[in-house]
Amino acid sequence: MSTGGRPQAPRGLPDWMDSAEEMHPSDIADLVAAIESEEQQLEVLRTLPTELASDTLAEMEEYEDRAELLSSLDAKRGTALLQDLPDDDAADLLGEMEPDDRDRMLAALPTEEAVEIRDLLRYGEETAGGLMTTALVSVTAESCAADAIAEIRRQGREVEDFYTVFVVDERSRLEGTVPISDLILADPGAPVAALVQPAAAVVHPDTDQEEVGRVMGRYNLVSVPVVGAGGVLLGRITFDDVIDVIEAETTEDILKLAGVSEEEELKAGWLESVRSRLPWLTLNLVTAALAAAVILSQEELISAAPFLAFLMPVIAALGGNTGTQALAVTIRRIAIGDRVRPGHFHAVRKEVAVGLLNGFVLGALFALGAFLWEGEMMLGVVVLLAMWSNIIVAGFAGAMIPTVLNRLGVDPAVASSVFVHTLTDLVGFVMVLTLARALLL
Amino acid sequence: MSTGGRPQAPRGLPDWMDSAEEMHPSDIADLVAAIESEEQQLEVLRTLPTELASDTLAEMEEYEDRAELLSSLDAKRGTALLQDLPDDDAADLLGEMEPDDRDRMLAALPTEEAVEIRDLLRYGEETAGGLMTTALVSVTAESCAADAIAEIRRQGREVEDFYTVFVVDERSRLEGTVPISDLILADPGAPVAALVQPAAAVVHPDTDQEEVGRVMGRYNLVSVPVVGAGGVLLGRITFDDVIDVIEAETTEDILKLAGVSEEEELKAGWLESVRSRLPWLTLNLVTAALAAAVILSQEELISAAPFLAFLMPVIAALGGNTGTQALAVTIRRIAIGDRVRPGHFHAVRKEVAVGLLNGFVLGALFALGAFLWEGEMMLGVVVLLAMWSNIIVAGFAGAMIPTVLNRLGVDPAVASSVFVHTLTDLVGFVMVLTLARALLL
Repeated sequence: MSTGGRPQAPRGLPDWMDSAEEMHPSDIADLVAAIESEEQQLEVLRTLPTELASDTLAEMEEYEDRAELLSSLDAKRGTALLQDLPDDDAADLLGEMEPDDRDRMLAALPTEEAVEIRDLLRYGEETAGGLMTTALVSVTAESCAADAIAEIRRQGREVEDFYTVFVVDERSRLEGTVPISDLILADPGAPVAALVQPAAAVVHPDTDQEEVGRVMGRYNLVSVPVVGAGGVLLGRITFDDVIDVIEAETTEDILKLAGVSEEEELKAGWLESVRSRLPWLTLNLVTAALAAAVILSQEELISAAPFLAFLMPVIAALGGNTGTQALAVTIRRIAIGDRVRPGHFHAVRKEVAVGLLNGFVLGALFALGAFLWEGEMMLGVVVLLAMWSNIIVAGFAGAMIPTVLNRLGVDPAVASSVFVHTLTDLVGFVMVLTLARALLL
Repeated sequence: MSTGGRPQAPRGLPDWMDSAEEMHPSDIADLVAAIESEEQQLEVLRTLPTELASDTLAEMEEYEDRAELLSSLDAKRGTALLQDLPDDDAADLLGEMEPDDRDRMLAALPTEEAVEIRDLLRYGEETAGGLMTTALVSVTAESCAADAIAEIRRQGREVEDFYTVFVVDERSRLEGTVPISDLILADPGAPVAALVQPAAAVVHPDTDQEEVGRVMGRYNLVSVPVVGAGGVLLGRITFDDVIDVIEAETTEDILKLAGVSEEEELKAGWLESVRSRLPWLTLNLVTAALAAAVILSQEELISAAPFLAFLMPVIAALGGNTGTQALAVTIRRIAIGDRVRPGHFHAVRKEVAVGLLNGFVLGALFALGAFLWEGEMMLGVVVLLAMWSNIIVAGFAGAMIPTVLNRLGVDPAVASSVFVHTLTDLVGFVMVLTLARALLL
């Protein structure tokens, strides 16, 4: 890409800086994050045009050290970058800083902006308040389309890409919204009152971000108004923030399903990971040992028929796999708010039916194998019945347990798999041992 | 909610129909989907105002039978609803129909619309072409802001909420985009050429929907242009389609991780579920049996020390859990395209470190328990070493296997867990048996 008349990047800067001004901030963000030397990272942030530099910082969300970078810049440059950011991004960045750095930077900002950002910092990171920007364009229902557009032209200069115009009353209480496209298409004389639509949804500053994502996805909203006490319009959240939220929540769900606590960042250091995973593993150790304890009570049976030591883990494992399948389907149904068929017990019935058939097929296969190996008919029966029953139980538990937990208001993703796998271990061991005692001895 | 002057809903209609006109199509969609009797569902679709009825159909994506509903309406109403839909929604609906129903409905449409929709039907359901709408607003770079707005007012009537104006040359090749907000803010005389921005990203009709989602999320695009050969602008995809895509892809990832094939719909019938899960379970049966086969070779050892039959499943299970944790974190990193630290082997080193510590703690706990139970020192050593090594292997495999599969171009979500769990079973059993033989006998 030609670098036009611009000077070559000074020494010490990466070559891509030559074409940085034609690049998207998201791409620059990756390149900066990948630079090893902090000194060079800072040099890039000093050299980039102010707006591009601040957009780059905003796009570096995933990079833990970006706040440190900002506070390591000289005060003047740092303040300039911060001032150039939308207030929500600025608040996010400051939120990641050491308290004293944060106060220093806030002090350097014009009072008005500092106040705005302090307000945003009050809200929890994972709430609507933490996501919203206070920069928006609003008009009153009394004005006509042409006036509204004139008003937007006044307000709009401050506001980065807006898609929806908010209609408020004289006490800035939200009355509804008008898509910009409608405003443009409308006859200039048409009163805004005739164009305004009731907001398909509003959220409150303390609404959880997951709920914000669900609402915006459900109603296909490009931006959602955030209203406070008395319906006063406080800010807006736009679709792009929500896409990030959905990604984050997804990661959280997948990790929780695997027994990794939601606090663990994908980029967590190893000690943080140990801290977040050890409790779960310890719980699993206890439950697994308790389930296997039934084997301890049958040592003489095992000595007599050591083949059972081979059967039990396999039958327990297949129960576990079946349970995981039912669990994943059910938990996902719950997560997306299973809109079409609310009756989750329908899901339980289905999983049991699936288990009946899968369990019989797998049980028969394994029974055949066991029979051929040991040449004992009754052993085949033991294997068939043990595997079959365990897989039915697995399907039932995998669908029922998360459903019940969810109704109890407990997050089903976390606890379900311990319950399910303890149960399938236990049933697998008990069935093998009891059937063996009954049919083999 | 007052029903104003409108007549009460006729008998046979659900009560909520009284206030349907104040409701959002997404909400109506749920209510319609929840109605048991198809006759009543049809009655609702006949009674709702045309636009609301077609929006409702569009919002019923999750409901398999919506296409059947549409084709069960009398031809005139059916065509009216279809005509009222954006072409992408219409194409989706027709795509779900029986071929002959589809042809019948297409035949009833005005030729031009029929052709548009046929074109869209050519593209794969999970591609950009399958997501895009051809309805968009475009201007040429030569016009000035005021002319552009006038042009938009002409074109816009046909187009549902648009946020971006596409700039094309005389042969409708894409030159760039202008956010509507910029167009409004611009001085009316300003040439569009001065406002146009190069498109941050473009996709092609055959681009996979997952990639479309990634691009729009990455660059915060409210809509992305779809261009064909020679850069000709074919259509646009808006953020709301992408939010649905991200949800669908998430479901796919979670289910695959649990061994449920991506073909299985959350609302699949039980037989479909059997078909999609049995192969995976059978594979697991084979691998689990193969891993456990080492136990068969040690029957006399088991008879001598039946306590081992208790140890092995527990140690194998903890390895499995550890492997699942490492797997989930690694696969998720790969899925979101681990932007900050590209070196996945960093992840492998980390998981091994985590395993070293977690494995020691868990091994020591379990060893202590075993020692207290059996009162044999050496047994504690066996347990500690077996558990410890298995958990280290689990961390290593859980991070390494998906990374390697991914580099080989294989979807890591599917195969990884079989490999990991077979390995952790095998290592668990082998370590217990070998150490027991060496240290206990």
